[in-house]
Amino acid sequence: MITIGDELLIGQITNTNSVWMARELTAEGFRVVAITTVGDAPDDLLKALDTAFARADILLLTGGVGPTRDDRTKETLCRYFNCGLTFNQEVLQHIEALFERRKIALNPLTRDQAMVPEVATVIPNRVGTAPLLWFQRGEQLLVSMPGVPSEMRTAMQEEIIPRLKQSFRLSSYQRRDYLVTGFSESALAAHLTSFEDQLAAPFSLAYLPTYEGIRLRLSAWGEEHAGAMERQDRLLRELLGSHCISYSARRAEELLGEMLMERGLTLSTAESCTGGYIAHLITSISGASSWYMGSVVAYDNSIKEKLLQVKKETLATQGAVSREVAEEMVRGVAAATGTSCAIAVTGIMGPDGGSREKPVGSVWVATLCRQELIAHAYIVGNNRAQNIERTAGIAITQLLRMLQQEAVS
Amino acid sequence: MITIGDELLIGQITNTNSVWMARELTAEGFRVVAITTVGDAPDDLLKALDTAFARADILLLTGGVGPTRDDRTKETLCRYFNCGLTFNQEVLQHIEALFERRKIALNPLTRDQAMVPEVATVIPNRVGTAPLLWFQRGEQLLVSMPGVPSEMRTAMQEEIIPRLKQSFRLSSYQRRDYLVTGFSESALAAHLTSFEDQLAAPFSLAYLPTYEGIRLRLSAWGEEHAGAMERQDRLLRELLGSHCISYSARRAEELLGEMLMERGLTLSTAESCTGGYIAHLITSISGASSWYMGSVVAYDNSIKEKLLQVKKETLATQGAVSREVAEEMVRGVAAATGTSCAIAVTGIMGPDGGSREKPVGSVWVATLCRQELIAHAYIVGNNRAQNIERTAGIAITQLLRMLQQEAVS
Repeated sequence: MITIGDELLIGQITNTNSVWMARELTAEGFRVVAITTVGDAPDDLLKALDTAFARADILLLTGGVGPTRDDRTKETLCRYFNCGLTFNQEVLQHIEALFERRKIALNPLTRDQAMVPEVATVIPNRVGTAPLLWFQRGEQLLVSMPGVPSEMRTAMQEEIIPRLKQSFRLSSYQRRDYLVTGFSESALAAHLTSFEDQLAAPFSLAYLPTYEGIRLRLSAWGEEHAGAMERQDRLLRELLGSHCISYSARRAEELLGEMLMERGLTLSTAESCTGGYIAHLITSISGASSWYMGSVVAYDNSIKEKLLQVKKETLATQGAVSREVAEEMVRGVAAATGTSCAIAVTGIMGPDGGSREKPVGSVWVATLCRQELIAHAYIVGNNRAQNIERTAGIAITQLLRMLQQEAVS
Repeated sequence: MITIGDELLIGQITNTNSVWMARELTAEGFRVVAITTVGDAPDDLLKALDTAFARADILLLTGGVGPTRDDRTKETLCRYFNCGLTFNQEVLQHIEALFERRKIALNPLTRDQAMVPEVATVIPNRVGTAPLLWFQRGEQLLVSMPGVPSEMRTAMQEEIIPRLKQSFRLSSYQRRDYLVTGFSESALAAHLTSFEDQLAAPFSLAYLPTYEGIRLRLSAWGEEHAGAMERQDRLLRELLGSHCISYSARRAEELLGEMLMERGLTLSTAESCTGGYIAHLITSISGASSWYMGSVVAYDNSIKEKLLQVKKETLATQGAVSREVAEEMVRGVAAATGTSCAIAVTGIMGPDGGSREKPVGSVWVATLCRQELIAHAYIVGNNRAQNIERTAGIAITQLLRMLQQEAVS
């Protein structure tokens, strides 16, 4: 994959296209071997094309196809494939229809989008003006797509992936996932020494430390290894025992949602320092509305009093970041929203607000399930954005474990 | 930059390291020419090293340096630089101290982190076990760092960037930013035709469409162009007029915060469909607590009634996604939290919940400032995650414009 655009090289935007494409392609059985980002300058893209064709059969390009002058992918592809531009009537009609629907006047710059490289097969872009361009070069293939995420996703799902699947015979990607807690990364690796000693190609075991725990991924390419994968999976599960809290790559909030739904429980959250991020993670799951009621983001202490019935006295004597306030918050939000489970967090995310006694990174998390309530203190880190993510992960996992233990006992 | 790890190629995690590094490096005057992601296999990294050294003076590597077997960067660098490993006493002492502080036992895998390539200069990694490795190859430079974001960031800020600045004389990056509303991308480009006609190298103008508006970036490398930059900037400002709502690359929520603070106003939010994402964007800003009080995430209709005093009757007759409910929500949250300004959103993010009358993507946004209240309907898109981001951007911008117009009138 080659993602194109100066905005990616100066750090103006995060490259979310490549992770999305990589996930979709891997799930379909394609093997992504490299992802390269280059700027808008044609020479940089030309070099990247040579390098990429030397290592892959399929080259997917995103970006640089807008109507403005800084977008030069089309011109560069003409140079690379040594061809000129030709007018495409269908593309123009599509653009005209699109502009009519949006009720804006067509201008010459947009009309130029109907000029396409002579040697390319043109595939319509249902949701945008820049057509998808498909180039064949012997056994190899290059596809150019827009960099706008929604246009790229529609193109991939509706046009590109179906066509690629027709053109290539795919070997399937075998994969097992494990979410492990209670080990440091190196301690887990030490624990799995004998397992890894007997593990031979094409199997590989990868470690990914996350805020929810260490994610292990056992994988191999090829259907013929399905039986061996079963055996390795059994072996690994035995070694991990109850340290493995999930056999899935799904996020902790999805696992939590499933568990709540199974037991007919409902959830609300009260967030101080995470400022709505826990609610955001949960509501990113489609269908969460059946078990998640909502959140009170009590960023200011006055909101903790007004909406969560935290006592002024508790705030004054214990401070906002304390076991007592976390406990009052979790009880307060469950009462205010009428849910059977609740999560509350209060902490200091930095860079300001720390003290000797309660340094930046100090967090209290209280979780409630029916009559039971637990509260724990944690120390996260120094970086505000990461502290927010980490605290959210910790809080969700704390309730997840509480529910798992309830199931066991 | 080369970011290493199979988890990036199968789409398991988003590459947030490269965007952070690109932003920091650009700000310091370094020019990032390419970012490549490869997997853990040594051969793929070896090829990427050759390609990268052919186009850059400095090569920054992240990832593949953990204590587990899937991490093979160190071994690959030994092959590349044709050297063996040597024991480093200082690294071992640092690791021992780190483990003692964390109160966990040291194991042989972690002890192996003290084995370093003979030809590398070792730089301590204050916050992790894998040392930073600095390789000189003639005039060129390679630095290997951990892929764990917090370790990479600490290493870059405390060790790598200061050393790079000592080693290289830098040309400064001149840049001006503009946030433009009221134009489509192509209409804006048409409007700026004469400006772009006279704009010559080394100046370039880039267009980035975002949910907040179109972001323009005028840039050039080299201090000697500071005067010309001033002139081009004046010219562009004149052409954009009041369509330009900000001369900064900062996000809309930061501009909003500044404006609220200047006028002594406070803000609360009531979120249904965005599920806490607006609150998250706002509370990601350090210091937001001086103007932002909090949010009620009223995901379930019962919460809209209980905490925001939305009338049962309004919900029943108008439906949750309606002008009336948005207006009651915004008044409700301002009253419950005692703020002078408020934002409320209600909508259908999909994939489920749409109807013929109110399809997926339908959104109502109400904003309130003192006595004034406005509400608008929008149609966003089909993708849940993008709809949430887009709606949040729209809602924040709606209040921002309201405040700007208040200032003018």
